[in-house]
Amino acid sequence: MTTPMRQLMANAIRFLSADAVEAAGSGHPGLPMGAADIATVLFTRFLTFDPTKPDWPDRDRFVFSAGHGSMLLYSLLYLLGYRDIGIDEIKRFRQLGSKTAGHPEYGHAAGIETTTGPLGQGAGNAVGMALAERILNARFGDDVVDHTTYALVGDGCLMEGISQEAISLAGHLKLSKLIFLWDDNGITIDGKVSLADSTDQLQRFEACGWQALSCDGQDHDAIAGAIETAKASERPTLIAARTTIGFGAPNKGGTEKAHGSPLGAEEIAAARKALDWPHPPFEVPSDILDQWRLAGLRSSARRKAWETRFAAVDAETRGEFERRMRGDLPSGFVQALHRFKRRMNEERPAVASRKASEMALEEINAIVLETIGGSADLAGSNNTRTSQMAAITAGDYSGRFVHYGIREHGMAAAMNGMALHGGIIPYSGTFLAFSDYCRPSLRLAALMGIRAIYVMTHDSIGLGEDGPTHQPVEQLAALRAIPNLLVFRPADPVETAECWQLALQNRAAPSILALSRQALPTLRLDEHDENRSARGAYEIDPASGEAKVTIYATGSEVEIAVEARAELERAGIPTRVVSVPSFELFRRQTAEYRRALTDDPSFKVAIEAGIRQGWDELIGRDGHFVGMNGFGASGPAPELYRHFGITAEAVVDAVMERLGGEDTPEDA
Amino acid sequence: MTTPMRQLMANAIRFLSADAVEAAGSGHPGLPMGAADIATVLFTRFLTFDPTKPDWPDRDRFVFSAGHGSMLLYSLLYLLGYRDIGIDEIKRFRQLGSKTAGHPEYGHAAGIETTTGPLGQGAGNAVGMALAERILNARFGDDVVDHTTYALVGDGCLMEGISQEAISLAGHLKLSKLIFLWDDNGITIDGKVSLADSTDQLQRFEACGWQALSCDGQDHDAIAGAIETAKASERPTLIAARTTIGFGAPNKGGTEKAHGSPLGAEEIAAARKALDWPHPPFEVPSDILDQWRLAGLRSSARRKAWETRFAAVDAETRGEFERRMRGDLPSGFVQALHRFKRRMNEERPAVASRKASEMALEEINAIVLETIGGSADLAGSNNTRTSQMAAITAGDYSGRFVHYGIREHGMAAAMNGMALHGGIIPYSGTFLAFSDYCRPSLRLAALMGIRAIYVMTHDSIGLGEDGPTHQPVEQLAALRAIPNLLVFRPADPVETAECWQLALQNRAAPSILALSRQALPTLRLDEHDENRSARGAYEIDPASGEAKVTIYATGSEVEIAVEARAELERAGIPTRVVSVPSFELFRRQTAEYRRALTDDPSFKVAIEAGIRQGWDELIGRDGHFVGMNGFGASGPAPELYRHFGITAEAVVDAVMERLGGEDTPEDA
Repeated sequence: MTTPMRQLMANAIRFLSADAVEAAGSGHPGLPMGAADIATVLFTRFLTFDPTKPDWPDRDRFVFSAGHGSMLLYSLLYLLGYRDIGIDEIKRFRQLGSKTAGHPEYGHAAGIETTTGPLGQGAGNAVGMALAERILNARFGDDVVDHTTYALVGDGCLMEGISQEAISLAGHLKLSKLIFLWDDNGITIDGKVSLADSTDQLQRFEACGWQALSCDGQDHDAIAGAIETAKASERPTLIAARTTIGFGAPNKGGTEKAHGSPLGAEEIAAARKALDWPHPPFEVPSDILDQWRLAGLRSSARRKAWETRFAAVDAETRGEFERRMRGDLPSGFVQALHRFKRRMNEERPAVASRKASEMALEEINAIVLETIGGSADLAGSNNTRTSQMAAITAGDYSGRFVHYGIREHGMAAAMNGMALHGGIIPYSGTFLAFSDYCRPSLRLAALMGIRAIYVMTHDSIGLGEDGPTHQPVEQLAALRAIPNLLVFRPADPVETAECWQLALQNRAAPSILALSRQALPTLRLDEHDENRSARGAYEIDPASGEAKVTIYATGSEVEIAVEARAELERAGIPTRVVSVPSFELFRRQTAEYRRALTDDPSFKVAIEAGIRQGWDELIGRDGHFVGMNGFGASGPAPELYRHFGITAEAVVDAVMERLGGEDTPEDA
Repeated sequence: MTTPMRQLMANAIRFLSADAVEAAGSGHPGLPMGAADIATVLFTRFLTFDPTKPDWPDRDRFVFSAGHGSMLLYSLLYLLGYRDIGIDEIKRFRQLGSKTAGHPEYGHAAGIETTTGPLGQGAGNAVGMALAERILNARFGDDVVDHTTYALVGDGCLMEGISQEAISLAGHLKLSKLIFLWDDNGITIDGKVSLADSTDQLQRFEACGWQALSCDGQDHDAIAGAIETAKASERPTLIAARTTIGFGAPNKGGTEKAHGSPLGAEEIAAARKALDWPHPPFEVPSDILDQWRLAGLRSSARRKAWETRFAAVDAETRGEFERRMRGDLPSGFVQALHRFKRRMNEERPAVASRKASEMALEEINAIVLETIGGSADLAGSNNTRTSQMAAITAGDYSGRFVHYGIREHGMAAAMNGMALHGGIIPYSGTFLAFSDYCRPSLRLAALMGIRAIYVMTHDSIGLGEDGPTHQPVEQLAALRAIPNLLVFRPADPVETAECWQLALQNRAAPSILALSRQALPTLRLDEHDENRSARGAYEIDPASGEAKVTIYATGSEVEIAVEARAELERAGIPTRVVSVPSFELFRRQTAEYRRALTDDPSFKVAIEAGIRQGWDELIGRDGHFVGMNGFGASGPAPELYRHFGITAEAVVDAVMERLGGEDTPEDA
């Protein structure tokens, strides 16, 4: 009996993957071998894409949520003819500098739609991509945007809580063009799934508004039938494709031994025999490779048809779509923010920075039509919904505001998916304390370098009565710790607008705006268009002479710094105030600029209603810090500020003590 | 028609709650008013507890997961006669220093079983408590441990992903004595639940192995009937109790306006009229209060019967139970670790610190029988399962190891619940990078000051090929930022044992042990019993003369520091090495001790395969840091260390450059 070509094509994935893992000495052969049939059916019969134009906007999206099985994806990209992944990259799997990292890394090679590995994240990304597709479809029509999002998920993805947030949101929004292919192999690292889980996943997905199907994940026609049914559904669909992990490995297949380690020479040899694959490692017979390369060209006609349709769209719409997909901001954006800043200069409102953010967003959202706002059930508190933003609902995706529900983690992962999809700038909010709930997704946004913007309000003990569970204390430090994440904490309406501008202009990094619950005065009265926040730190209030004291502060504490400065100046002590809206941007300034702000001989005090960690970078070990030493407390905000000693008086006292000549180490 | 007493009792909760919120000027009246009937039925007819002995070990546990409705709990505690909550505390709701914080804070008053507010956490805590109950029941029998865990959960708890992890674990383990009372009011902050969610929660819970019931949550008999059915089940049970948020408030009831703000004088007056409650704020008529106080005494006979049964238990078992519930460690524990350290001194193994941790745990678990180990599906990688530990399975809770599944967040929340229950010291593991997934629960453990121990392995780029998604870079800094969390990063088997000792002995703080994937030499060859790691930082390798250089390092990088020191000493530069297993414990040392380690004139270098943030506290702005500036990469670990310049050579070069007289700012 000859093996059918489609089986040979799947076997090509199996052995490329197993051999690459073997060569690397580490990796996960089990998933690629088990899911090779699913992938072969999907990529050769359903997925719309074009390896020669991998960024074609209307391609289907394939999210490889079970990222540890990365060799499945790399094998596919190689076989299909994506230029970035030649056979040499397959051979260099998991080597330093290769495009074939241990887990798929967005940006390493075309065809990798998102970085995965931390389980469940891809599920959330896929929901965001599918939502982005519907939103853009509502704006640009079927001729321009009409594609399907597929995610390959594993048992681990479904056990992670984020998957619940993702699927219940997708079910609620009836994202019918979203299809999860679950590699249902019943095995995790520790052994059988049944060691730790007994969930009826089909029933669970149905409870969340999904269609749920199951099929033999080793049977090509069964898989194809399930995908056909999925595509016809008005709900998102889960396909539980029952597979054997490490399919083909006669001894380790079907067990956890195939999951996360090389099979070993003997077992691979046995698998070659079992599957009748006599070819040496990394060699795919030309007839099989040809079939794969043909499959790679399968949708090029569709791509060309799209191009024809797109060319027929009116020039303005076409330009708008192209601009959005490039990620460029519209003209007039900067001017609008200049006007806003000038208006703030005139009106000098005393509003919470979350309110100032809403005011700035009113201007931004009127011009930047690709922003999609949202909140994790705190719309009125986060002030993220502006007048332009109708809610997006199941079946009507023409709105611009997402009720993400009480799903901070799923929200952040979906925002990542929207940003990755392109054509949309997602922003959304929760309380800063609950940035902890989204942290794994924030980290991935930073690692991928994508533009997702998190509006994190109630950013200190200024939140007041809700108490320590809701009061961020360590979150600013913990967020600043994440590489390539811009953490902004603006002090007033002018800085808030500037930080929004920076967040929107920084395409290659996610941003957080930490915003106050409580009202803050307008402090920035300089009337010019320079974005001073772009410096990260700058002198917001100069000393009357050569500064003997420098007070650094962020956000709501800049007001305190300004008060303390006034008092010190009255006492004849020249004092300047440096506002620090962003540590990250300050680090990017020239050494000269930085030295001028931090290396002068003045006594240095920092004020932030959070912990000290990180501040020594500016004020040194000898600097004095006015902030928090531990968790907050429940009570009215002004009382809390006094209780924890975050006051102008405390600053003045510390300065007087130090300048008075007593040089006792403050924390002795 | 006269109002039945049980209705009056519920109304007492309603008005205490609404009036307290009104007096505070903030808070959440809607939940207490809506769920007052559920609470009345539960506390007057089912819950076994004793306000005069609130810590009675075999009491039922009540977890108030929807913590924003805290006034429900405070009202109950007051009405039932818990001494900590008098009417004055009710009047001081949400005021600084009161026991009645905005959200229930564990430790503020007896009867508050856990700190809640961040949604979904209580659901996870309750699963841990119910599991702890079964584990202790398996050890001590029905006469000593046999109680039920109830959790009141809200819509938000069920939307949070952590709830999925919690309920699927509970369903898998068939925790039949766990009952969730869902305040199914259909309202969240933004409006109707249907804005953001369409999940069929009953079906979802059934899919997870639960019994799912629904009832009219305003009908006392219906509620009671559902609880009866729940108690008879062999599965955990969800009771969807349909309620009206703000029940009794004629205009705001049933809407989001009752959720999170005071009702206002007018609406409260209208509610008084609607419910025929003419009494002034904070006054509960004596007949109603008497009935509540009687309800408070309802289970005192059961408590006494338990005491009689317990007194009849053999003295050794009784003593063991009491010791465990006090949280004391058994005798012989310290001696066993001393023996272990001496053996390490002799054998000098070169093992990964995760392996050293397993070796130490072999000794610990043989003596400290209350440890319950576990892993989030990385048992073999975290090395948390020792020879004594059989797996805990549905129906057989006599084991000591929990397969938590791929549920890091639910695991951490369940561990909190186990620690809160008492009688158990939970420890469990995942990769350090995935500490991000559990962060909200870690924070609550720290806020509550409970002893849960997290074994976080693969703690740096030393993880190698899995790449940046799995390589922690900022996690050490981010964890050190959490107040009252002890972060240990031991350098060798001796320090690992010491850190385990400290983690176990610190009852009032959670601990993390950050452990290496890669092998490390035994560096601590001093043969004495002092726990040097208890200092937080200490000189592990002295200089040959007055130190010109001090190298600080943690964990796997101490080996590099020792190498660099040897080379510098060979070059005639007296160099000492300071190992820093815990920043937090170092901060607790005397100023004199700290100064001796950080304030001498030597040139300071720190090595840690993470970011610099936090290190300036030890080395100052002028110190040199050898570590990471951004995310890691996929590749073999030794290559990564070279690639990122975390080598002895880099340390030596930096020292030579500085001591050579060139005084260029390193980061210019």
